[in-house]
Amino acid sequence: MEDSHVQDPIAELITNYNELNSSFIEELDEEPSALEFMRFVARNTPFVVRGAAADWQATQTWTVDYLKDFLGDELVNVAVTPFGNADAPTLYTPPSSDTSTLVFAKPHEEPQPFSSFLTYLTTQELQPPSPNNPHGQQEEEEEVRYAQTQNDNLRHEYAALLAHVPRTIPWARLALARDPDAVNLWIGNARSVTALHRDNYENVYVQVAGRKHFVLLPPVCQPCVAERGLRPAHYRRRRRASSAGDGDGGGGGGGLELVLDEGGGEGEEGQEEVPFAVWDPDRPAENATRYSALVQPMRVTLNPGDMLYLPCMWYHKVSQSCSPEGVCIAVNYWYDMDFTGPLYPLSTFVRSVSNEKK
Amino acid sequence: MEDSHVQDPIAELITNYNELNSSFIEELDEEPSALEFMRFVARNTPFVVRGAAADWQATQTWTVDYLKDFLGDELVNVAVTPFGNADAPTLYTPPSSDTSTLVFAKPHEEPQPFSSFLTYLTTQELQPPSPNNPHGQQEEEEEVRYAQTQNDNLRHEYAALLAHVPRTIPWARLALARDPDAVNLWIGNARSVTALHRDNYENVYVQVAGRKHFVLLPPVCQPCVAERGLRPAHYRRRRRASSAGDGDGGGGGGGLELVLDEGGGEGEEGQEEVPFAVWDPDRPAENATRYSALVQPMRVTLNPGDMLYLPCMWYHKVSQSCSPEGVCIAVNYWYDMDFTGPLYPLSTFVRSVSNEKK
Ligand SMILES: O=C(O)CCC(=O)C(=O)O
Ligand SMILES: O=C(O)CCC(=O)C(=O)O
Repeated sequence: MEDSHVQDPIAELITNYNELNSSFIEELDEEPSALEFMRFVARNTPFVVRGAAADWQATQTWTVDYLKDFLGDELVNVAVTPFGNADAPTLYTPPSSDTSTLVFAKPHEEPQPFSSFLTYLTTQELQPPSPNNPHGQQEEEEEVRYAQTQNDNLRHEYAALLAHVPRTIPWARLALARDPDAVNLWIGNARSVTALHRDNYENVYVQVAGRKHFVLLPPVCQPCVAERGLRPAHYRRRRRASSAGDGDGGGGGGGLELVLDEGGGEGEEGQEEVPFAVWDPDRPAENATRYSALVQPMRVTLNPGDMLYLPCMWYHKVSQSCSPEGVCIAVNYWYDMDFTGPLYPLSTFVRSVSNEKK
Repeated sequence: MEDSHVQDPIAELITNYNELNSSFIEELDEEPSALEFMRFVARNTPFVVRGAAADWQATQTWTVDYLKDFLGDELVNVAVTPFGNADAPTLYTPPSSDTSTLVFAKPHEEPQPFSSFLTYLTTQELQPPSPNNPHGQQEEEEEVRYAQTQNDNLRHEYAALLAHVPRTIPWARLALARDPDAVNLWIGNARSVTALHRDNYENVYVQVAGRKHFVLLPPVCQPCVAERGLRPAHYRRRRRASSAGDGDGGGGGGGLELVLDEGGGEGEEGQEEVPFAVWDPDRPAENATRYSALVQPMRVTLNPGDMLYLPCMWYHKVSQSCSPEGVCIAVNYWYDMDFTGPLYPLSTFVRSVSNEKK
């Protein structure tokens, strides 16, 4: 492992990492002390604590009816996509072209009354489309909805529910000596998938209802995820008048079309590309780099009450299964990562070296 | 900092690191809690606590006379070199050649009665050579002696003194959840310098008498230190019969000569090279790599009672000044580093990429 003129340094990096680290997540018997947590932060290594949030008020009380009673018709921000692909690499076919390219597809964001949003989720989940009833019980064309505004929404939009969860995770607060930068609520159903990406946050992720399926890759796997500069695009509701005419823009089903973001005064091509992973650990043969095969993804499913520590800069892809009521609900706490020390500059280094080899 | 096709990734790494991290050491008002310490471990960042060991029995009682009384003529292992260059890159001239090369010079190791070793150190320090007395008060040719066997010597050779220091550093033990792998005693004078190198240990270094001057470089600076494969060599006392004949082998003053290690049955050239830094932060123009100029060394001097946390894999060069009695004494605690997580494989990666660029 020490002398390595022979091997490709990137392949060696990933192999060394795999040799020294397990690809099975550590399961703790109980929540860690601040010191125990800090050891995981120091090692940049995930863990899960089963049932740690089992007696949170949220986990105990957030049934669909309870939430509808609680929030009623309050408007909430909903991400609407045709395939559950909010913030995901997506094939786009320009109106006047036959060839499609990958773009970064942002959802259509729409204020919706909370209770009809929940009804939409559960109906879609519990009464799926059948040949006689191609859109299930939904009246409109099928679309996928996900409350996923990662903007501290539980302390703002959903502040009424905030008292049902701790304001911070005590051991994380003590260890990191800071309060969470954001507390986020996630409400969706099995149609939504969060594409592989990473965040500059220490993340404590808590499952409330339904299940989440995480695929995790450590920061050293940057050369495996096929990061590309993608043009930003967004979904919008198709205007009825134009719906027959100019192609579906790659938007597919639902009343949604995908359009490229327009440049800020610099013309349509002027939008800056979004660097984004296009490799999907669940379709490893597609968009692979020469290093993707070396990855040993860590997989973990969270059940209601389970708590995951997802260290900063780890790639994660997240899919979901619903509770018997037909929803999937989670809460997470984002704590600013520490940019001092070697990890952040070394991660940039890995990316730069891997860009050079392209 | 994010997009970097333009710049050399190694230069970018060191520059980014410097931008995010101070090159001045943090000074703590008091010893850290285990949790506070773990934050430094997580950031792989040094700190110093002035006076933390001021009331240790060692700091209070270890005068030269006290130590002589205590250990008397017990034999201790002493590293003997002509220039205070134990374990240092050193120019070597083969007997039949005019050109010299850098080799890795190990000291001559010799059992010496403790009290005469101490007398040698203090006499050399306090009564330096003068024109009338070219070797000071020393009777023999000048040489440099240093008790520096980093083999847990305070728990073995010097076990009689062990009770004068704590067996472990409480906050380090709690944080790292392990006992020290080695507790080392260092006794020398201002003639000895420890060359720039790094260890796979978390190091708590405590000054007892005299002062130590550390120059510290973080692990990302590997490309700056000009690591080379050096042939191993060692000093030995010149045999009188041969001293006139075959050159001084680069050994210089003193009755010592430098000889290459012999290959273990594979012939003289068979010894494996030792990878070692040949750049010296105090002579930055010599042996520089194209990255050496980017280094911002951290410098810290320890006074008696001061405690330094030197994180694993940091390069350190250490020189010393004597107490009024003419010695420099320190104790350090080595805790095994954690090889899990990204730091160790990423450090290997930096070395591999920098080897590729050579
Ligand atoms: O729950 C999800 O769909 C994604 C979660 C996520 O990306 C995060 O917590 O950072
Ligand atoms: O004190 C010295 O001379 C060197 C110390 C050292 O290298 C260490 O503590 O690892």
